[in-house]
Amino acid sequence: MTPESLIRAFQEVLGEAHVLTEAADQAPYLVEWRDRFKGSTPMVLRPGSTAEVAACMKLADAHDVAIVPQGGNTGLVGGQIPKNGESEVVLSLSRLNKIRSVDPLGRTMTVEAGTILQTIHERAEEHDLIFPLTLGAQGSCQIGGNIATNAGGTAVLSYGNTRELVLGLEVVLANGDVWEGLRTLRKDNTGYDLKQLFIGSEGTLGIITAATLRLFTKPSAVEVALCGLDSPHQALSLLSVAQKHAGHMVTGFELLPQVGMQFSVKHQGNARYPMSEEHPWYVLLELSCGSKDIDLASLTEAIFEEAFEEELLNDAVLAQSTTQADDFWRLRHGMSEVQKCEGGSIKHDVSVPVVEVPAFLDEAIAAVEAFVPGCRPVPFGHMGDGNIHFNISQPVGVDKQAFLAQWDAVNEVVHGIVAKYGGSISAEHGIGVLKRDLLPGVKSPVEMAMMRAIKQTLDPKGLLNPGRVL
Amino acid sequence: MTPESLIRAFQEVLGEAHVLTEAADQAPYLVEWRDRFKGSTPMVLRPGSTAEVAACMKLADAHDVAIVPQGGNTGLVGGQIPKNGESEVVLSLSRLNKIRSVDPLGRTMTVEAGTILQTIHERAEEHDLIFPLTLGAQGSCQIGGNIATNAGGTAVLSYGNTRELVLGLEVVLANGDVWEGLRTLRKDNTGYDLKQLFIGSEGTLGIITAATLRLFTKPSAVEVALCGLDSPHQALSLLSVAQKHAGHMVTGFELLPQVGMQFSVKHQGNARYPMSEEHPWYVLLELSCGSKDIDLASLTEAIFEEAFEEELLNDAVLAQSTTQADDFWRLRHGMSEVQKCEGGSIKHDVSVPVVEVPAFLDEAIAAVEAFVPGCRPVPFGHMGDGNIHFNISQPVGVDKQAFLAQWDAVNEVVHGIVAKYGGSISAEHGIGVLKRDLLPGVKSPVEMAMMRAIKQTLDPKGLLNPGRVL
Repeated sequence: MTPESLIRAFQEVLGEAHVLTEAADQAPYLVEWRDRFKGSTPMVLRPGSTAEVAACMKLADAHDVAIVPQGGNTGLVGGQIPKNGESEVVLSLSRLNKIRSVDPLGRTMTVEAGTILQTIHERAEEHDLIFPLTLGAQGSCQIGGNIATNAGGTAVLSYGNTRELVLGLEVVLANGDVWEGLRTLRKDNTGYDLKQLFIGSEGTLGIITAATLRLFTKPSAVEVALCGLDSPHQALSLLSVAQKHAGHMVTGFELLPQVGMQFSVKHQGNARYPMSEEHPWYVLLELSCGSKDIDLASLTEAIFEEAFEEELLNDAVLAQSTTQADDFWRLRHGMSEVQKCEGGSIKHDVSVPVVEVPAFLDEAIAAVEAFVPGCRPVPFGHMGDGNIHFNISQPVGVDKQAFLAQWDAVNEVVHGIVAKYGGSISAEHGIGVLKRDLLPGVKSPVEMAMMRAIKQTLDPKGLLNPGRVL
Repeated sequence: MTPESLIRAFQEVLGEAHVLTEAADQAPYLVEWRDRFKGSTPMVLRPGSTAEVAACMKLADAHDVAIVPQGGNTGLVGGQIPKNGESEVVLSLSRLNKIRSVDPLGRTMTVEAGTILQTIHERAEEHDLIFPLTLGAQGSCQIGGNIATNAGGTAVLSYGNTRELVLGLEVVLANGDVWEGLRTLRKDNTGYDLKQLFIGSEGTLGIITAATLRLFTKPSAVEVALCGLDSPHQALSLLSVAQKHAGHMVTGFELLPQVGMQFSVKHQGNARYPMSEEHPWYVLLELSCGSKDIDLASLTEAIFEEAFEEELLNDAVLAQSTTQADDFWRLRHGMSEVQKCEGGSIKHDVSVPVVEVPAFLDEAIAAVEAFVPGCRPVPFGHMGDGNIHFNISQPVGVDKQAFLAQWDAVNEVVHGIVAKYGGSISAEHGIGVLKRDLLPGVKSPVEMAMMRAIKQTLDPKGLLNPGRVL
């Protein structure tokens, strides 16, 4: 089939308006926000229903067309951008953006894949419920992409990864069949739990078109504190004290280094130091709770009392208003953004067992400082889950491109230390294109073979997001 | 290969002592405790290490020998018993019973598949931690079987199914390869989450030989109450009130019917009515919490105060000692056992969305009473997860076998109502042999095809637990 007749065939399925072939129309789908991944495509498909996604996939299957599913285009590993000159067709889920149903009593919501995460938050709040998945891109990322990448974010400590928040899925398979797996049950042991295969498979095994999500009681009380500490070792002990007092109510535990705070104060509008003095490390601690019977403020006091007694803290400020709490969180969420103002940044999204975070940080910081003299490590993130965004800002005054040219070599240094601690080279962003070549280095041949066999089974022609993950 | 030379080949791998061929030695492996499933086997293999399991599987693969993996032999759907006259070889994991490591700080434990659940509980408690999986058979069931069946139990409400408690697995595949998937990370998005395939697959995709489990803070306070109510509708409202006050600290919410309580008082040694009057329904409510700062007793009071005000309760007794709390739990855990004393019992392990439990019970009780006049429905179980063991004791005085002959017909009645509420015909026991023929009736052809394709991929010769699940 010629490219032109293929375009016409898709137009017959979706209507001309929803098959984008003009460069200007395609542009937003072909590059991600950091300009790191750019590509080209013969067309961008914008189906409006599950049936249309299925029809597109049947057509793709009949004519061996590679399909790149795309949600909000906020992925960080290139999984959603078509490759240059490879005739990969983008299939955008954006028009599948209906909230199909909300069950406030059963605390579930069934949404289509293109629903923006923020919209889900707002809809849940109308019922005094929350959908806990929380991340920087929530204003534009789509739930289908969140599920396909098993997104993490800042609430994993208490609520789990996206995987734990999904009860059921509807998926279009490589041959265009629709798997109706939308369920609302907490317990169901009838055969293999197939949804688990699609969650986190980055669009390589099927196209998620809808999901049933778990909702939770909206916290009636929230306490947010910013703590100044000398070291990640103290932070680990602080986490332990916090969990001893407040258990599951410790809903956020984020680590920030001094240099990151300095970047924020310098580059983020309105940001200012929350404490009179600077500290080598900071922890953003959030406690929240849905019960009015529990006095969260005195729980927080008990944590700080013990932490000061044990000399785990230099200083701590409790947010006195939701505005101040939001300010503290903005310091954390702006961490990637402010690094842009300091030149190039080499990034890692790694995890190690929680108890190993301090040792890992000591070793990895020393190693990259030795490898790139003058570089400025800005490791930050979800210490409560062992997930650190180990970013390194370039030395002041050096050439950005020359620094970035060391990306792979620096990765190798850091990932070597991650391996030593039994860690992961992709804690929450996935593999995509960016880390595909690294995967065989961290997985056994048996595991690679199993993954390839499953890919071959569910997508025998290799049409779904080819060259991503595997 | 002749049967004799096959036995010799396995003896060469395991030593003669660990290949059981005598009827007396084999007996405990060939029947389950209710006498419902009985079988025969040419031999019972008792490997002592993962390497020996792998060697057995390589031999089985070379000679097309069907293998039935067996843990503590407590499964309820016949998955672990070899079929009569089919030359299926039993592979017992009992000798793989080492606790390989405990990490109290990181709160993980790595155990071999044959480790008894109770042993894991005890080892966790040595570190003031718990492994929350709790079920009647915990003194004899093995963790490998718990994982292979994604066991549920009484703590799912707060801690999740077994699936949520597993961080990593070691699995021997159908061809004898060993997949080293033991991990201790909370976040890891490097490729497909393969452990999910084996969890709940009932030994049909691989043999689990070891697992890394999540541990949790041991509750410092526990409150157990027995509540008398008029209906499951009140129980649902009580659940909602309890969770509003105590959220995640509501760790048990079990429903019991009046007739079940009567059976217990009649047949269970030492059991007696906990309240002065009888009630149509009972709820066993457990609250627990690891923080000494939280006053669980006053939380419990607040729940009861609101519940009495809202007229959700007739009466409630708070256990005044751990002995009394244990007595309350014994009433619940003995529910299956005491039914044996009342003759035949037709059973269902079903779930519906939690909010539908009362409507489901109304409808299902009426339906079976109409279908088998005089029968005595004893629905009990994990109301907080929507999982009801919908058991029906025979009418008084009728022939047991005649009653049990209606098993399939009664199943059809109950499962029809389950389907109406979007429920599951196997909430926690799995499919095994017992429900295999029912599976295509509750799954779409697309889903059945996907499951068969995965089975074909991971076990192309169909050697692992053939005829179970699929």
